[in-house]
Amino acid sequence: MFTHVKKLQYTAKPDRPDPVFAKRLQEIVGGQFGEMTVAFQYLFQGWNCRADQKYRDMLLDIGTEEIGHVEILATMIAQLLDDAPVTAQEEAAKDPIIAAAMGGMNPQHAIVAGLGAAPTNSVGVPWNAGYMVASGNLLADFRHNLAAESMGRLQVARLYEMTDDRGVRDMLSFLLARDTMHQNQWAAAAAELEEREGFVVPATFDPSQEAREYSHKFINFSEGEESREGSWAQGPTPDKRGTFEYMAAPVAEGQEPILKPAPLYTHNTLPKK
Amino acid sequence: MFTHVKKLQYTAKPDRPDPVFAKRLQEIVGGQFGEMTVAFQYLFQGWNCRADQKYRDMLLDIGTEEIGHVEILATMIAQLLDDAPVTAQEEAAKDPIIAAAMGGMNPQHAIVAGLGAAPTNSVGVPWNAGYMVASGNLLADFRHNLAAESMGRLQVARLYEMTDDRGVRDMLSFLLARDTMHQNQWAAAAAELEEREGFVVPATFDPSQEAREYSHKFINFSEGEESREGSWAQGPTPDKRGTFEYMAAPVAEGQEPILKPAPLYTHNTLPKK
Amino acid sequence: MFTHVKKLQYTAKPDRPDPVFAKRLQEIVGGQFGEMTVAFQYLFQGWNCRADQKYRDMLLDIGTEEIGHVEILATMIAQLLDDAPVTAQEEAAKDPIIAAAMGGMNPQHAIVAGLGAAPTNSVGVPWNAGYMVASGNLLADFRHNLAAESMGRLQVARLYEMTDDRGVRDMLSFLLARDTMHQNQWAAAAAELEEREGFVVPATFDPSQEAREYSHKFINFSEGEESREGSWAQGPTPDKRGTFEYMAAPVAEGQEPILKPAPLYTHNTLPKK
Amino acid sequence: MFTHVKKLQYTAKPDRPDPVFAKRLQEIVGGQFGEMTVAFQYLFQGWNCRADQKYRDMLLDIGTEEIGHVEILATMIAQLLDDAPVTAQEEAAKDPIIAAAMGGMNPQHAIVAGLGAAPTNSVGVPWNAGYMVASGNLLADFRHNLAAESMGRLQVARLYEMTDDRGVRDMLSFLLARDTMHQNQWAAAAAELEEREGFVVPATFDPSQEAREYSHKFINFSEGEESREGSWAQGPTPDKRGTFEYMAAPVAEGQEPILKPAPLYTHNTLPKK
Amino acid sequence: MFTHVKKLQYTAKPDRPDPVFAKRLQEIVGGQFGEMTVAFQYLFQGWNCRADQKYRDMLLDIGTEEIGHVEILATMIAQLLDDAPVTAQEEAAKDPIIAAAMGGMNPQHAIVAGLGAAPTNSVGVPWNAGYMVASGNLLADFRHNLAAESMGRLQVARLYEMTDDRGVRDMLSFLLARDTMHQNQWAAAAAELEEREGFVVPATFDPSQEAREYSHKFINFSEGEESREGSWAQGPTPDKRGTFEYMAAPVAEGQEPILKPAPLYTHNTLPKK
Amino acid sequence: MFTHVKKLQYTAKPDRPDPVFAKRLQEIVGGQFGEMTVAFQYLFQGWNCRADQKYRDMLLDIGTEEIGHVEILATMIAQLLDDAPVTAQEEAAKDPIIAAAMGGMNPQHAIVAGLGAAPTNSVGVPWNAGYMVASGNLLADFRHNLAAESMGRLQVARLYEMTDDRGVRDMLSFLLARDTMHQNQWAAAAAELEEREGFVVPATFDPSQEAREYSHKFINFSEGEESREGSWAQGPTPDKRGTFEYMAAPVAEGQEPILKPAPLYTHNTLPKK
Repeated sequence: MFTHVKKLQYTAKPDRPDPVFAKRLQEIVGGQFGEMTVAFQYLFQGWNCRADQKYRDMLLDIGTEEIGHVEILATMIAQLLDDAPVTAQEEAAKDPIIAAAMGGMNPQHAIVAGLGAAPTNSVGVPWNAGYMVASGNLLADFRHNLAAESMGRLQVARLYEMTDDRGVRDMLSFLLARDTMHQNQWAAAAAELEEREGFVVPATFDPSQEAREYSHKFINFSEGEESREGSWAQGPTPDKRGTFEYMAAPVAEGQEPILKPAPLYTHNTLPKK
Repeated sequence: MFTHVKKLQYTAKPDRPDPVFAKRLQEIVGGQFGEMTVAFQYLFQGWNCRADQKYRDMLLDIGTEEIGHVEILATMIAQLLDDAPVTAQEEAAKDPIIAAAMGGMNPQHAIVAGLGAAPTNSVGVPWNAGYMVASGNLLADFRHNLAAESMGRLQVARLYEMTDDRGVRDMLSFLLARDTMHQNQWAAAAAELEEREGFVVPATFDPSQEAREYSHKFINFSEGEESREGSWAQGPTPDKRGTFEYMAAPVAEGQEPILKPAPLYTHNTLPKK
Repeated sequence: MFTHVKKLQYTAKPDRPDPVFAKRLQEIVGGQFGEMTVAFQYLFQGWNCRADQKYRDMLLDIGTEEIGHVEILATMIAQLLDDAPVTAQEEAAKDPIIAAAMGGMNPQHAIVAGLGAAPTNSVGVPWNAGYMVASGNLLADFRHNLAAESMGRLQVARLYEMTDDRGVRDMLSFLLARDTMHQNQWAAAAAELEEREGFVVPATFDPSQEAREYSHKFINFSEGEESREGSWAQGPTPDKRGTFEYMAAPVAEGQEPILKPAPLYTHNTLPKK
Repeated sequence: MFTHVKKLQYTAKPDRPDPVFAKRLQEIVGGQFGEMTVAFQYLFQGWNCRADQKYRDMLLDIGTEEIGHVEILATMIAQLLDDAPVTAQEEAAKDPIIAAAMGGMNPQHAIVAGLGAAPTNSVGVPWNAGYMVASGNLLADFRHNLAAESMGRLQVARLYEMTDDRGVRDMLSFLLARDTMHQNQWAAAAAELEEREGFVVPATFDPSQEAREYSHKFINFSEGEESREGSWAQGPTPDKRGTFEYMAAPVAEGQEPILKPAPLYTHNTLPKK
Repeated sequence: MFTHVKKLQYTAKPDRPDPVFAKRLQEIVGGQFGEMTVAFQYLFQGWNCRADQKYRDMLLDIGTEEIGHVEILATMIAQLLDDAPVTAQEEAAKDPIIAAAMGGMNPQHAIVAGLGAAPTNSVGVPWNAGYMVASGNLLADFRHNLAAESMGRLQVARLYEMTDDRGVRDMLSFLLARDTMHQNQWAAAAAELEEREGFVVPATFDPSQEAREYSHKFINFSEGEESREGSWAQGPTPDKRGTFEYMAAPVAEGQEPILKPAPLYTHNTLPKK
Repeated sequence: MFTHVKKLQYTAKPDRPDPVFAKRLQEIVGGQFGEMTVAFQYLFQGWNCRADQKYRDMLLDIGTEEIGHVEILATMIAQLLDDAPVTAQEEAAKDPIIAAAMGGMNPQHAIVAGLGAAPTNSVGVPWNAGYMVASGNLLADFRHNLAAESMGRLQVARLYEMTDDRGVRDMLSFLLARDTMHQNQWAAAAAELEEREGFVVPATFDPSQEAREYSHKFINFSEGEESREGSWAQGPTPDKRGTFEYMAAPVAEGQEPILKPAPLYTHNTLPKK
């Protein structure tokens, strides 16, 4: 069960309206790595958790925080949209440069949301749950969470560069910090599980059922060998079970596929007799 | 530019048809973490790469391999669908148990694809590019790739448990091995970048612009404190810049949001005077 | 069966081209509450109707009208796009302010549709049937229809404010009027059913199977009590079966969820022993 | 800001696992009118609220409750999936009738979610924000909320009929009650606004700008006149501004559309000279 | 403007209910090549038509017919769903084989649509306008229409094989015939335009601006040369401007891409110095 | 299996950055008829091919080429985005006209992709597999391929008109040529199959099971008869089985649909007694 606190977790007050930036800010509300994604991702991971309660608790703590981040951003966006010059009657709208600039606004902010935030990304595509995952395997989940917070902080940093509004930057400085914390958190949690279970996900799958001759080979699918120079092509593997091997050219070991002719009832094209 | 080799990278021959399993196998073709995702994810990351050529080369090598994995799976699915008893005339279809079992088949395998693989997941939702990412920041990308391979191998392992067809299991044993390799690979590549740049993504953002008092705090958003017990709540942080701090209760530091009344032209509800 | 009349139901002639407004106008063609939604919503409700024929007939009448509204809007959009200055050669396109303004145009109007209307909303997201509903319960449907016409008229009113083209406004004045009629219509139809069946949807579900102690309680999930001041927190309930009760704080009456450990074949994380 | 309480708002304990019903129950988690929809719908309406604080507070109270309903359902689904017979090795899976029945299970529950709930509907389509709305006009919003709760309770009632598990039914009896309350609530709140503003949304649009001769006319777009018999075709209109008029046949008052030939740069088909 | 006729264009009466087939039949309602696609595809092509009025008229004629086909199918689906044994109380539902068979039913037919048709495909994915196109170039459009009718008739034929219900087959025999007609129609219309304009779409683009040395070359991107054997690799080209040429191996004529380092504000990974 | 060649198939070097054009160019990367569509469309058609190997080979050849076209475009887009003036600090960004022009840029190019190409269309909607098809019937597939190449070349031609950058135009001139080739190719391949099988898809369906009296009739669903003037309304049909017949008015031959009342367990509205 959840409860609501009326004050925001952190201040969200822009210096001045900026409807074009409001559009951009939507990316971290309803985009692939926006706060809606991490909120529901952590909540579902917690709700589905069949492992130790400390993981469930931790996941639900952070998921709950993230709903509050959506709230912070929604509040900011509404204020960035204050008095947007969208009507034909206003003086501002008659200035061709301002009118042109308003072309960069998200029209749904005015037409659909009445100068409020929308559950969409920076180009207006609605958030969808295909962005998130809760797999039941916490090491897989924590790695995904680490990636999501990395992408999230990257996008926040880019948005920070796109504005000089001090109020917006102050709010972003808070989100940057929380994304720093969450990167640290998921990395620590993943390391804890790696220590307990081993590196490869899932750890419980019997390695003898795996075609292990392919488990440490980098295969070079192109002509030059620049890809040989990396830490992924030589030296010990992170799973501590071997060393990377560089295979300079791929080998096609499977069959040349020849499928059975289709049965008549499919009305497929049949081979020529 | 790409070229095609007619033989498969690995053998894909089932012992016998199994249209219900064909439906399930679609998850790793066109699902969120299917081979279509990783193929295009690595290719776009490579194509967009503005860093060292060895990364570009490596990304394109693996992306190219993954297209071949889609091919292996598509070939397997077509064979699992051989002679599926879908018509009303067939004897098999008149057996109510077989008919009931065929209800578990994906009807699009027959109606849309003519007994072939589809670019969809195990419930028939078409693949979409909202599953993938290419951010320009390789550490963020590599972490996402590690997560994708972890999820991918987890799903392959689950599918392995759901069949006893030796041919299918043989093919899956190969995919398990490649996913092991790719987990190793992305972890090694990420570690290389972490060493070069630092742990937090993006490393280039000026830390002094961040609200650092929030950068290492775990905030407990619930009443009990099970979440205090983890490696994310105490001890040194992975970014080596501090130690985790546990904040037993959240504090709402922001304002209570009161938005300006809407301008008349929005036809929003106005506050009562 | 349907037939087509070549003249439009109402005049659609703009005073002058305006490709930026054409983009905005798409919201009421292919947006969540656009004419495509209501057209197919009413048609499917009619086609699925298992109740009195007068409802079926009425639903199909209005659904048929709405296809004609898509036609009116498509015709308007094509004219707003007449001679849009999209090519690099044109004089207009060389004026940086005009060029900037054209950035506010929907590029698909030129590239995909050849200066015609598209089945998408104002940010270019394709219409999808997840916007509409036909439930078989007409009271639920009529309430949804009333909401759709309320949202529709709201959006038309906002678009009206964004243009001073008299031709466009004339067409919108017609749509405003039809949305007024349709709000009246669905409210009257819903009231008729409420009188026949009762207020709560579905009326046929046995109330004794409902946990009725929760049926009239407003639960305050936050600290302050501003929410106590409304008509939803005191006085008789619209279903005439009681009075609203205000519960000042929520109570968690369920269990603390502890799920069974996952079976091994899922390769989930297991609880630490 | 939000906080989490570890106990559920209401008990969620099934008598026994039932993976096929778990699939069906997803409809009210991640379907068009599932709890994810109403949770985010009410939260965004609250966050965007520029009217009286009591509305904001009320909206956020109910939105917060609804997140807890997602939690209840997720917990129930995980338990319905306990020990689902999905592997090829299990005895149960070898029984052809059980195997056929498992064809009715959502394969993603096993492959993707590891026997947990998913943010998708009963056929596996991911939730998307195109289901929800927050318009800034509260009367429009409240009408949509009333419709959503009507659809929601209808679906819960149908699910109730599909199971005889007492634990599941107990949980559904709670959701039925809350949906009863919420129908009452939104109807009361809408009535309050209708009294304050008038019936037609938006109330603030100048009626003299509307083509009022079409504002109360039912137009019969088919040959028979069954649609004349309803409360929508005669008598006073709910907006109290007139009486319904029945127009026995539609009139096409607009032009026959003849568009300008396309400019050459579109490479459209041109009229034959 | 459109009007509705109460009788169906063709009879839609099944011999008996069949909820599993109802699910399959949804493919041609709301699938990629279902009647919703062709209805709106032809209507938008007509509405956007800037060429001769005979094309506009013809497109709108057929688009109007197709709405009536959705109606026929919706009516059929509702009847196939009559009395579906979905409740837990019914005798039929207690038979494990019948229960298993019902697992093959679309649960939304019961939960969402109340035993009516849905605007979705055979796996329940909602129709979306990304399936259709109206480009303004009629030759491109007519070719797409020919393809759509070819796919449509193929799917109808496959569905015909999957049932022995005479009523369903009678209805499908009508749809097969109309799809035959429409294949003929679009082929004839395309041929008329090819004669008028030439074969290659768009015909109006200046061929001298095209890299014509690549306009008739088949490039073999694989090792063997089976692809040399077809009519596409030798002989005169359909555009009558040359002969096909077979290029036995591809040549990479472009640069090896080396992108500029990213600017600092993107926080991308930079090349190692 | 696939391999990668580091050089591009054709040169992709713009004269100068142009982020607004980069946005437009996305249409042919990740749009409905972009290179991602044809790449996967041809690959799946090849992988599913149960007919002669020469078709499989040919399909995979062209599919492989198309992946390389995505690569060319991605490389071009990255260069068009070089140094886009997106930050608040830059001089350029302070010029209101430049700022307004940047409103026409796709914000995800900066925020999500770090100045790289995205797997989305020109309005930012992610590519999805609902755009493509592989039906198992090659004549149906080839017709769809012909349509796709026609749409593709049309869009390339329109983009060509929108830029005067010689480097971009050079690249487009190559794509125009390949689309010319591919139109020729699919038309030739389709003609070969039509000769072998007959005109109507699918050719294997028994014509005696079709309601042949409707197979050659054009039905006029509107009042005037402009649609009578075309090649689709008179003369021999392309299937060589008859002549077109023009039916001046539609006849509704089916029943007036009256559905059975809903069973109680659906909680639908019932007919009034």
